[in-house]
Amino acid sequence: MGRNIKDILSQLTLEEKVSLCSGLDFWHTKGIERLDIPSIMLTDGPHGLRKQVEGADHLGIHHSVPATCFPSAVGLASTWNKELIQQVGVALGEECQAENVAVLLGPGANIKRSPLCGRNFEYFSEDPYLSSQMATNHIKGVQSQGVGTSLKHFAANNQEHRRMSTNAVVDERTLREIYLASFETAVKEAQPWTVMSAYNKVNGGYASENSHLLQDILKDEWGFEGFVVSDWGAVNEIVDSLKNGLELEMPSSCGVGERKLTKALEDGQLSEEVLNSAVERLLSIIFKSVDHQKENATYSKEEHHQLAREVARESMVLLKNDENILPLSKKGKLAVIGDFAHNPRYQGGGSSHINPTNLENILDEIQLVAGQETDVTFAKGYRLESDEVEEALLEEAKKVAESAETAVLFVGLPDRYESEGYDRNHLRLPENHIKLIEAVASVQSNIVIVLSNGAPIEMPWLDQAKAVLEGYLGGQALGGAIADLLFGEASPSGKLAETFPKELSQNPSFLNFPGEEDTVEYKEGIFVGYRYYDKKRVEPLFPFGYGLSYTAFEYSNLKLERASIQDDEHVTVHVDVKNVGDIKGKEVVQLYVKDVESTVIRPEKELKGFEKVELAPREVKTVTFTLNKRSFAYYNVALKDWHVETGEFEILVGKSSKEIILSEFLHVESSTKFKKDVHRNTTVGDLLSNPDLAPVAKELLAEANKNNPLANLAEMDEEGAEMMVAMMNYMPLRALVNFSQGNFTEEMLGEMINRLNEELTIKA
Amino acid sequence: MGRNIKDILSQLTLEEKVSLCSGLDFWHTKGIERLDIPSIMLTDGPHGLRKQVEGADHLGIHHSVPATCFPSAVGLASTWNKELIQQVGVALGEECQAENVAVLLGPGANIKRSPLCGRNFEYFSEDPYLSSQMATNHIKGVQSQGVGTSLKHFAANNQEHRRMSTNAVVDERTLREIYLASFETAVKEAQPWTVMSAYNKVNGGYASENSHLLQDILKDEWGFEGFVVSDWGAVNEIVDSLKNGLELEMPSSCGVGERKLTKALEDGQLSEEVLNSAVERLLSIIFKSVDHQKENATYSKEEHHQLAREVARESMVLLKNDENILPLSKKGKLAVIGDFAHNPRYQGGGSSHINPTNLENILDEIQLVAGQETDVTFAKGYRLESDEVEEALLEEAKKVAESAETAVLFVGLPDRYESEGYDRNHLRLPENHIKLIEAVASVQSNIVIVLSNGAPIEMPWLDQAKAVLEGYLGGQALGGAIADLLFGEASPSGKLAETFPKELSQNPSFLNFPGEEDTVEYKEGIFVGYRYYDKKRVEPLFPFGYGLSYTAFEYSNLKLERASIQDDEHVTVHVDVKNVGDIKGKEVVQLYVKDVESTVIRPEKELKGFEKVELAPREVKTVTFTLNKRSFAYYNVALKDWHVETGEFEILVGKSSKEIILSEFLHVESSTKFKKDVHRNTTVGDLLSNPDLAPVAKELLAEANKNNPLANLAEMDEEGAEMMVAMMNYMPLRALVNFSQGNFTEEMLGEMINRLNEELTIKA
Repeated sequence: MGRNIKDILSQLTLEEKVSLCSGLDFWHTKGIERLDIPSIMLTDGPHGLRKQVEGADHLGIHHSVPATCFPSAVGLASTWNKELIQQVGVALGEECQAENVAVLLGPGANIKRSPLCGRNFEYFSEDPYLSSQMATNHIKGVQSQGVGTSLKHFAANNQEHRRMSTNAVVDERTLREIYLASFETAVKEAQPWTVMSAYNKVNGGYASENSHLLQDILKDEWGFEGFVVSDWGAVNEIVDSLKNGLELEMPSSCGVGERKLTKALEDGQLSEEVLNSAVERLLSIIFKSVDHQKENATYSKEEHHQLAREVARESMVLLKNDENILPLSKKGKLAVIGDFAHNPRYQGGGSSHINPTNLENILDEIQLVAGQETDVTFAKGYRLESDEVEEALLEEAKKVAESAETAVLFVGLPDRYESEGYDRNHLRLPENHIKLIEAVASVQSNIVIVLSNGAPIEMPWLDQAKAVLEGYLGGQALGGAIADLLFGEASPSGKLAETFPKELSQNPSFLNFPGEEDTVEYKEGIFVGYRYYDKKRVEPLFPFGYGLSYTAFEYSNLKLERASIQDDEHVTVHVDVKNVGDIKGKEVVQLYVKDVESTVIRPEKELKGFEKVELAPREVKTVTFTLNKRSFAYYNVALKDWHVETGEFEILVGKSSKEIILSEFLHVESSTKFKKDVHRNTTVGDLLSNPDLAPVAKELLAEANKNNPLANLAEMDEEGAEMMVAMMNYMPLRALVNFSQGNFTEEMLGEMINRLNEELTIKA
Repeated sequence: MGRNIKDILSQLTLEEKVSLCSGLDFWHTKGIERLDIPSIMLTDGPHGLRKQVEGADHLGIHHSVPATCFPSAVGLASTWNKELIQQVGVALGEECQAENVAVLLGPGANIKRSPLCGRNFEYFSEDPYLSSQMATNHIKGVQSQGVGTSLKHFAANNQEHRRMSTNAVVDERTLREIYLASFETAVKEAQPWTVMSAYNKVNGGYASENSHLLQDILKDEWGFEGFVVSDWGAVNEIVDSLKNGLELEMPSSCGVGERKLTKALEDGQLSEEVLNSAVERLLSIIFKSVDHQKENATYSKEEHHQLAREVARESMVLLKNDENILPLSKKGKLAVIGDFAHNPRYQGGGSSHINPTNLENILDEIQLVAGQETDVTFAKGYRLESDEVEEALLEEAKKVAESAETAVLFVGLPDRYESEGYDRNHLRLPENHIKLIEAVASVQSNIVIVLSNGAPIEMPWLDQAKAVLEGYLGGQALGGAIADLLFGEASPSGKLAETFPKELSQNPSFLNFPGEEDTVEYKEGIFVGYRYYDKKRVEPLFPFGYGLSYTAFEYSNLKLERASIQDDEHVTVHVDVKNVGDIKGKEVVQLYVKDVESTVIRPEKELKGFEKVELAPREVKTVTFTLNKRSFAYYNVALKDWHVETGEFEILVGKSSKEIILSEFLHVESSTKFKKDVHRNTTVGDLLSNPDLAPVAKELLAEANKNNPLANLAEMDEEGAEMMVAMMNYMPLRALVNFSQGNFTEEMLGEMINRLNEELTIKA
């Protein structure tokens, strides 16, 4: 509708404008009736709608209206299926329309820095490229239905421990390449209606009042057009928040925020321009919501349930399948063991907790898919409420397992292990789950383990299982999905979006998580996830990108359309993938880029493209990737920009971060020219390695070094000459004075520096 | 002599005073004849005297007078023998007196952050306690002879790469606990006459003009009484150096320094008080030197050579001895292979390079010790000058090895691999050495490898050798020492003072060494050496403290004299050690301390005591250690002091960092009381866990949370309650306002904070 927001703004009183910057209650913005500004509802997501019917908690305790519970973000990411995520987004948007929800609070794009983070199940990946692709498609899907999203939690909210007071200390390069990159593409390509600022501090300032994050980067650099809403209760000082780029405080502070803003406006601490700009952003989204609102919208619960099942199938990752024990045959005696088969763990705790429309029982679904010829027996194995080992339950499980041909064990992390609000402090399964595996293994060698958990666990018992299916938190249709995969109705196609360490201590953040008092230093820097395991040559339990299939794929014909590009150009990459097995399946083709040589330390390789393709037996498809500057760049802090160093890059295509099948070289030429002034502490080696300066520098140095015994020694072809050359190269110009025995003076040094800087100017 | 330095100072002109702050030439201070102030000589060490007879390089190229070459620092440290190091110091002092050298430039106490550092052979250890104990005893020995030392290179000079321009970024706790601690004990207990400031920058400022290091810590905190001399050419701006705690620029800057100082005095940029204080320190050492000078001093070259042999024997570390292949029997056919047997590598390159009085040939010494019944044959195996694999040499080596019962291979790092001035970039042996091992292994299974190298190497060939003796750089008497050990004239007793990684990437500094451009960030923090391998549970090739013996030792009766102490008290620890083998041997008893629980991240354990004892067969000795506050403390940055947290500590006694034999618990009670003010971002949990505040806080919080839905949920015994409790604990007080639904106002919050701070004052 042709509303003029500037015009509306001009009609608002100061009081009204101030009022818009703070919520009405727990879930709504304030409305202003006289100007037809409605109150809109923002409510929790992101893998299902959580609209509360009563009360005012934001942590999923009170009941909410029924909604389709899709797999949690960890599962969505494990599909590596961009189109499918977008379909989930569309479904979520439809449900929001049906419930009159204007903005769904998600998706979460925080990087999984440590597997301990209690909220990892709500995040996509340890890799910013994968994470941002997932977030982009999620947002596109939801917003295609005229419903907004809130990309959260911006930024560096990578733990629950002291999340409202801790200060994440992250160097700028790491922030840009890892933590912000995970948001960047989603903001630029999907324009979420809102971005949610995090609880924590980032490099000293609260994320909710951090102008570097909210103003400089999010709005000025990335061009974010929506408004920034605080995480619930994240505002420290509302005036500082508004000044630094936040627009909406949630939930309502019951007048406190408004009084503070009013006073600041009176005192001149806050300018009306800042307020106007905030209100303009708020109004533009509020009206966008109104304009897209669909009357009497409904959705098909059954269709959404089926979508949830499809997504769940693609989200599960087959980690091990010795002797091809999977898929199971549909006859004989099958033992199903573990209370999860009856009482599935299908989602995480906290603000994302959904009231599902139709929760499947895994055991029933198994019987359904297995058919009449399969005799399915069940034993509980453990009680969910406790970690206590109960001998009677183990004995029962052994008995059931012993009399079957195969035992499928459902183990994992109970609700209390993983939640918003707190982190885990170890990666072990509950003691009674471990003991159950051991007990069953003592009587049955055909063991299939199905895991329910939102983040990596240690598997000291791995040798005791022939197959392991990582089910993650599969949403309400997990039962059917698991049954489909166990019996080969579908071939597993999920791939890990995170590294599984052999033990917690392998994780790169281990020495610096969750920090001390209110500081957590990200000392592992850019080496998060596989970037660390690769570079440090640490063998994880399962690498990033890994996942087995019931069929097999061959890669061939990796082709780069050009052998050399300039960094502002694109290059297209093709590779052929063939299904060489006997059944239909999906493969995730992963493209990584390696900088062969670099002056800065870089990861061994970084994910820069992926495509999921479905292939019938014998079918071949050509997969195409397009690489651009960012595919090759690192963030150069001095340049304050992304930078590509001229040189060779290796384009690696494979099935996981550890299993690269094909590779080709590409030459990339930088279009950026650095100019570094020469000063008294510039080293001799730096002068000589600068092609613009070397000729002049050589002459000048020869003169300066006439009486320098070290320089003369460096010229000799003798024992120790190597040392002398290194010495000379590392020597700052000012030291030439000391070693010249009076021949080269400070004044001459000054002249030399001037002459060299002139030369730089000439060559520039 | 009863000189009055204040009086002399008052007689000096400004020009004379300025002149004293800069060297006369490469090796001498300036003298002032009219006041009988002599010029004194400072010259290179530290494991032998390097007094040049000609020229003016400080890197060991020109010839120097003959001097006893003791094992390099890496070897000295591997003896773990404090008394022996002191004897070496005494011998060095005697040689200095004989050559009229006033100050020997050493020892080096820099920590081995990376095995790549080219100068590691000149440093003691990766552990500050061991390093500082070694430095202390070295200094005490030298200075007992009236000769000064120069403890170097202060500080954080842990690489040669860009050493004159790089900036070491080290957090304060790491600096204190690791890099400075390595100097601290030596300064406090041995008072070196001089300390040498390093080339590099530390946290932004050159070490030579860093008042935090030179003034605050070295002089004010540690009470250093001598003068600070620059590393040769390390002065950036002499005026800044003097202002910040350096006294002497070396070598002479040929008047440049003096002119700058004079101008700064005239301009008022430098106060005369600063200059006077510098000159006072200089004069006090110069006169100390004069007063201790011995006329016509001499020393016994033979006795020093024998000492060098004893030290070398104790410095070598037996890393492997399968099937007790060592000691060798003194008969039969023995193949000695490798050019090092003829042309030993016995010291490193650079300023510590000695002209030995009597260099032993290993092959000759082997024949001498082996006696007439041993038929020793030799093959060169490789050429030292090159890494090139020469088939003819390999064939010859195989022939010699094949016809012998055992082959002893001499391999390692040639001179050009390790030196002052540059770092290694890998840990491999030269290709021709590796191929030699493989060639010999193809014909001979009884292989003993003797290594010559100054720092760890990778050993992918380890399985091919039955025994490996790490000979390090054994000094001029290495030949006899190796022969003694090979044939059992002595039992090996050296222990590694550094961790040998399986591969370079295991090293904690791997991702941050040698840094980018002119910055190197010590992101591994306090986790240097075994502190990292322990904590990260990384299995190294050989752990810190490790070394085999020809005999065996048993530990028993670990006793703490008290079960509980206050942190300002001492505790004595006893342990019995018994030689249960059949031959005489020495054992290094190592004591580590583990903080069982800590609010800050701490190493698994830290070395806090060690004693080397000699035991005849069946002999038992009781070893005693005394532990004090520093044995339990970490450096608390907020407190700006060492701090012990009240609690349990485990006292671990063992044979290496990985082989702990006995342990006992000790309770240590802190004598420090922290007071942390309550503010609007203090968390609820922090209030409730403070025993002084908890009672009052509970009452106040109950009132504030009357209408807070989260708090009410936290009280319930329901699903999700755990999350609510965590949420409440992590909640900052200011958020109570948001969640109170108007019940709890900002004003009430202010009152609450005041009330809590009052309570703190009352309880203090």
